[in-house]
Amino acid sequence: MAQILTFLGKGGVGRTTIAIAAARRFANRGKRVLLAIQEAGPAPGLILGIVPGAEPQELIPNLKVVQLQATVLLERSWEEVKKLEAQYLRTPFFKEVFGQELGVLPGMDSALVLNAIREYDASGQYDVIVFDGVGDQATLRMLGMPEIASWYFRRFRKVFADSDLGKALSPFIQPISSAVLNVSWTEDIFNQPMAQQANNQLEQGKQAIADPNRVAAYLITTEDAGAIATAKYLWGAAQQVGLTVGGVIVNRATGDGAESEEFEPLPISRIPIQSINDWQPLIDALPDFDQASQAPRPIAVNVAERKVSLFLPGFDKKQVKLTQYGPEITVEAGDQRHNISLPSELSGKPVTGAKFQDSFLIISF
Amino acid sequence: MAQILTFLGKGGVGRTTIAIAAARRFANRGKRVLLAIQEAGPAPGLILGIVPGAEPQELIPNLKVVQLQATVLLERSWEEVKKLEAQYLRTPFFKEVFGQELGVLPGMDSALVLNAIREYDASGQYDVIVFDGVGDQATLRMLGMPEIASWYFRRFRKVFADSDLGKALSPFIQPISSAVLNVSWTEDIFNQPMAQQANNQLEQGKQAIADPNRVAAYLITTEDAGAIATAKYLWGAAQQVGLTVGGVIVNRATGDGAESEEFEPLPISRIPIQSINDWQPLIDALPDFDQASQAPRPIAVNVAERKVSLFLPGFDKKQVKLTQYGPEITVEAGDQRHNISLPSELSGKPVTGAKFQDSFLIISF
Repeated sequence: MAQILTFLGKGGVGRTTIAIAAARRFANRGKRVLLAIQEAGPAPGLILGIVPGAEPQELIPNLKVVQLQATVLLERSWEEVKKLEAQYLRTPFFKEVFGQELGVLPGMDSALVLNAIREYDASGQYDVIVFDGVGDQATLRMLGMPEIASWYFRRFRKVFADSDLGKALSPFIQPISSAVLNVSWTEDIFNQPMAQQANNQLEQGKQAIADPNRVAAYLITTEDAGAIATAKYLWGAAQQVGLTVGGVIVNRATGDGAESEEFEPLPISRIPIQSINDWQPLIDALPDFDQASQAPRPIAVNVAERKVSLFLPGFDKKQVKLTQYGPEITVEAGDQRHNISLPSELSGKPVTGAKFQDSFLIISF
Repeated sequence: MAQILTFLGKGGVGRTTIAIAAARRFANRGKRVLLAIQEAGPAPGLILGIVPGAEPQELIPNLKVVQLQATVLLERSWEEVKKLEAQYLRTPFFKEVFGQELGVLPGMDSALVLNAIREYDASGQYDVIVFDGVGDQATLRMLGMPEIASWYFRRFRKVFADSDLGKALSPFIQPISSAVLNVSWTEDIFNQPMAQQANNQLEQGKQAIADPNRVAAYLITTEDAGAIATAKYLWGAAQQVGLTVGGVIVNRATGDGAESEEFEPLPISRIPIQSINDWQPLIDALPDFDQASQAPRPIAVNVAERKVSLFLPGFDKKQVKLTQYGPEITVEAGDQRHNISLPSELSGKPVTGAKFQDSFLIISF
């Protein structure tokens, strides 16, 4: 299992440059590093000095770089889908469609890139994966996917099982499954092997993202007001997907560091403007990326006091909405909805109070 | 029907600023304008001077601004889904799930934003919609969605109908549909009213995006090499989703205009560095946004000569892949796959030759 590191910040603040410097530093220190670049365009290649390809290639000793191309990843994943179908379906039909034909729909990039990182992580070939993603809300949606997708799974499974629709369909499930499937199928369509395998992967993804020693993000900003505001917003929004933010990097810093107080209590690293192609001063100015576990965690549950604390920096009370429509409580902030899966002692209990204090939303049951 | 305008370019080149200036110019000239901002963070508000909300609000006379928030749009769309289900399903079950609970998965942003623009367009309240989107590959995926989704629809419909799986399922479709649906259902599951309505919307979207008088993009760059390379890449990639690029805007221009030749034959507008809060010089330097119909079109079909020409600027021969695996030909470039739907005279015919000339891929049948 690798340590996975990514960067959040406004476009143009130098995310790719910092990602390359971070990857170089880990490699210099003897770690086996993969730098995974999501951007399909030529800009990262200009900074790297080589054109990255769809397979990892060595940049310097210990450091490989790969460009995660959605078209290539989709073709590979399609082959996996066909294997699954050949295994489970009596009369495969996806086999008639070729991976080389498939266009990329919105959302596929994120699912494919997340899956590729999962596979590189599981390969055991890397100690560190530096993910140079889109760096904004899209990266948060991607990292939030395991948690949100498992919510959809859980919620709709229950609604379907309890529904008249589920009951209306159940007489047909057995005859259809024996006509179509190789394997025996229970009445619970969410409980068959393919669904379970998918669900296990989602659970593993959730656990990895919730563990700051496994996955952490750092904010990158310049001294520009828009860049600072965006970094602060992404800091809060990251908490909503359970992602720990370990620190802030102020790139091209010339001023007095007044922006530091915006990001209390995160450690701040200031990187002066440096000449191109001289990586060492940049590498030396980077923070220690192992400190993320000391940063505030997105969620803390205190069962004894019947309290849940959510860290939501940068938002005020009016920007956070707490609802309890469904079986779980939902926190809306930063154009994200976070359904909070509670331990059994608190699950299903009504909320008795909520207050917003020092960037924490504290919910009582 | 409104004229829809969007901007593509690397992060940090000033896309939002240019979008606001463009919207202001149209409004000054008496057009009813909607400026639709996709970014959820606070940065656009800093430039606008007001915090945009989820409902259009007036910025200056004739100009309204809206922030397209995925959580809000998802809640609204969910109500529509429930209405459809109430209409078609005998025993609705989505009604048990509340829009306020739903998290945002990757891809939903794009689908929801595209749908919101479609609705604002159809409302008849606006002459011009300026869409300030993510401005990169994600915006292209979004605008490519109608064409790619209708390809998936068409392709899988045929595969399913021809397959043993389709035949194995067909005895069950009638009994299930009468148990579950309010309406009678044919054996073709792709041919029922909900699917047809979705398909019609996709067709309308495809037609709008293919018409440069309805939808056009402009490239924004600075004189930075990375920004120029990214703009050029997005120019080529835009062709792959059928989007016409009308011109180039070089922001914060100080140099001699050497970058112009990279973008031949597009018209170039150079915008000098201007002081904040003085919109007029910026507005005056903008191009005439009605020229997009004179720009090279993504695709031209010549039935008499049995030739199809694809405009693919910025790519060389090695970066473009042409395949004919399925019933249509597929062009891969710019991390996009474009399945070319041909007129009946050429459809299904084998490709006899292909050459790359002056940024055009010319395919002969």
